[in-house]
Amino acid sequence: MSLISLITDFGLKDNFVGIMKAVILKINPQAQIVDICHEVKPQGLLEAAFLLRGSFRYFPKGSVHLVVVDPGVGSQRKKIIAKTKNYYFIGPDNGVLALALKDEPPIDIVEITSQRYFLKPTSDTFHGRDIFAPISAYLSRTLDKVRDLSKGAPLRKFGRRIKSIQELSTPSVKVSSKVLTGEIIYIDRFGNLVSNIDKDTLENFVSATKRGGSASATRIGGCANICGANLFGGKNKKFKIFIKDKTIDRLFSSYAEGKHLKPLALIDSFNHLEIALNCGSACDYLKAKKGTKVFVYL
Amino acid sequence: MSLISLITDFGLKDNFVGIMKAVILKINPQAQIVDICHEVKPQGLLEAAFLLRGSFRYFPKGSVHLVVVDPGVGSQRKKIIAKTKNYYFIGPDNGVLALALKDEPPIDIVEITSQRYFLKPTSDTFHGRDIFAPISAYLSRTLDKVRDLSKGAPLRKFGRRIKSIQELSTPSVKVSSKVLTGEIIYIDRFGNLVSNIDKDTLENFVSATKRGGSASATRIGGCANICGANLFGGKNKKFKIFIKDKTIDRLFSSYAEGKHLKPLALIDSFNHLEIALNCGSACDYLKAKKGTKVFVYL
Amino acid sequence: MSLISLITDFGLKDNFVGIMKAVILKINPQAQIVDICHEVKPQGLLEAAFLLRGSFRYFPKGSVHLVVVDPGVGSQRKKIIAKTKNYYFIGPDNGVLALALKDEPPIDIVEITSQRYFLKPTSDTFHGRDIFAPISAYLSRTLDKVRDLSKGAPLRKFGRRIKSIQELSTPSVKVSSKVLTGEIIYIDRFGNLVSNIDKDTLENFVSATKRGGSASATRIGGCANICGANLFGGKNKKFKIFIKDKTIDRLFSSYAEGKHLKPLALIDSFNHLEIALNCGSACDYLKAKKGTKVFVYL
Repeated sequence: MSLISLITDFGLKDNFVGIMKAVILKINPQAQIVDICHEVKPQGLLEAAFLLRGSFRYFPKGSVHLVVVDPGVGSQRKKIIAKTKNYYFIGPDNGVLALALKDEPPIDIVEITSQRYFLKPTSDTFHGRDIFAPISAYLSRTLDKVRDLSKGAPLRKFGRRIKSIQELSTPSVKVSSKVLTGEIIYIDRFGNLVSNIDKDTLENFVSATKRGGSASATRIGGCANICGANLFGGKNKKFKIFIKDKTIDRLFSSYAEGKHLKPLALIDSFNHLEIALNCGSACDYLKAKKGTKVFVYL
Repeated sequence: MSLISLITDFGLKDNFVGIMKAVILKINPQAQIVDICHEVKPQGLLEAAFLLRGSFRYFPKGSVHLVVVDPGVGSQRKKIIAKTKNYYFIGPDNGVLALALKDEPPIDIVEITSQRYFLKPTSDTFHGRDIFAPISAYLSRTLDKVRDLSKGAPLRKFGRRIKSIQELSTPSVKVSSKVLTGEIIYIDRFGNLVSNIDKDTLENFVSATKRGGSASATRIGGCANICGANLFGGKNKKFKIFIKDKTIDRLFSSYAEGKHLKPLALIDSFNHLEIALNCGSACDYLKAKKGTKVFVYL
Repeated sequence: MSLISLITDFGLKDNFVGIMKAVILKINPQAQIVDICHEVKPQGLLEAAFLLRGSFRYFPKGSVHLVVVDPGVGSQRKKIIAKTKNYYFIGPDNGVLALALKDEPPIDIVEITSQRYFLKPTSDTFHGRDIFAPISAYLSRTLDKVRDLSKGAPLRKFGRRIKSIQELSTPSVKVSSKVLTGEIIYIDRFGNLVSNIDKDTLENFVSATKRGGSASATRIGGCANICGANLFGGKNKKFKIFIKDKTIDRLFSSYAEGKHLKPLALIDSFNHLEIALNCGSACDYLKAKKGTKVFVYL
């Protein structure tokens, strides 16, 4: 039984998502559809790309991941299918698949050119319904018949092979010997502030700086003790995190360790440095937003 | 495997929808349930009727469409099942099914009178749970056993045959030789403004007026060139659209053709004349709302 | 086919719920997942407990009810599975399961201690994904293989048996011979105000007071006639309900019986005394909130 995951910016107040599911199930009644998220901000490419990257690996091998965040619908932007070792990714070629495909590189990419599988008539305003849903359904139906998933389904019937996809420009982390400068790139329902500094970057920065011997010079004010046996190999390293006018001098391993309504930092469940508030919204408390800077000093 | 679609005004913050699904699956574990929309404004009959009409035809033949927007729950309003060539429609007889059944006329209508299939005890406040969900489930279970879908399932066991249903009063389009006057009847998540002027009405108006020769008299200011090979047979006709204090003189075939943050008009994916903003909300930009007038001049 | 119901405070704007479903379906592709509600207010234990209690009994026998409202994630709070006559309940041991388990007492309770079924690596911030989803999936997979559901699945492989769970403190109803004092504990999407006075409590109060003979002394102003043949055995008893500065002197059996935009009272579909407004929001109209007092005088 093939699984199709959905990420869109269609929201839940209209009938767009329900119609896509109807189209899918009309073509492949066996398809299992899982909503990842439909509340992506309209035209929120980075948000959708981030949600997809955080989600895709938890799905069964052979799942089809369909993303429809598509401000260029009806224009000349390509529509693509990318096959990786474990999954199939379908969407407009506007960067929305780029972060996931950086983590799991494509072994085959096809631009959807054959109109054979489109809904007819095909609108220029709702490719989710008329192109992406039916393509996903036909692909999943093919996958149901494939016994050897490692071989997978042939994509060539859907269009012509291409070599690369549109990249997505993302805010980068600046690394100096003294300071790591990142920013908030995602804010979740709880008001937790997710930065673009991932665990590896933080760990490398802390280790490198320590080896470089400049640690004492950059140690400002108090110091952060990384807690949690698994974090950074359990070594007792020291750094401080600054966001807005607040200083955080500890890295916790859970929200509940924080003091009630005091900002805390941790490596979150997607391996990003996150600023949170135990039982409250760090976003509201700090009046932070996407783009708010986060500094790490050693 | 029978499919049941759901439209309600129950929202997603309570347990109402989950309970309806539980009741359905307890009776028919094979039922496949697809949410069309639960965020219909409370008691929003016209909104629900519009969403149903836009959605029902995309579902597999034999699907059961259940709509629970039911301000009269517990009163003497009827509860009905309507069978059409391809589908079954279930809901209160308050007009919520009327637009869909205008597009696909019923060949059998039954008022639900038999209490045999109700949940017991049966409340007067939640017929979605106690009457509509179980009736849908029993009907879908029957459909699973019917081999010849063209013959369909007998409805008589659920109640007594009736001849007509409650109509729904909808804002009508005024047509004169010089101007077409419609209004906004639906606003989607993106702030796109959907008017009650459908493609056929617009096309007929443009053709008739042109044939009548009064086109030059009513041509005001610039002119609209309908683009898109499939629109209006590719002929190059001219008209202007007015909404609030804005004039739109072109009909596009996709959002992306519009200038960034400039109002545009197109025939949307449900064949209605729609006012939109490329990468923005026409609703916010124009401060429009349901009922805002839209004029088309030739 | 085993069914897993979900209640969380994860909302729908992130990917948390979709990821939990992915984890479940990767382990048990046959699992059927039903969302009860994900819009529980962050850390809203009482709200989640109330939604669960109102929902669980409508599901098929053998269903697994998973609740993840878990402000103490990563702390020393227990994670538990409770087996009752008809269902399995899984969640953090913070009281969120307590109301349901008061209605349907557990016959076996296990603290989840075996890490064998956890996702690895196991975070301290997202037990919904790493612990609760996989445990639910493994349990439901076991249930699929159990033929004799009355015997059920053994829980011991997931951890060690415990004897009791964390209670949940809830606002209590004060009963005197003259007045019943309750409060609003839940407000639904329609603005209906659900009180903590249930049907039995109200009925007992009315009967007892009547028997006590003090009814005439406590009868204030007009009087309430309980309507509806099934309510209170059809006897014609009299009482008044006070909320904010309003008096309600009738108990209706449906919303539609109320006058347009006038507050009304009824026993709702979950057997609680509810204050509502026909075609409007009692919450907005009365400016009420959770905790607003409700008085019943005889």
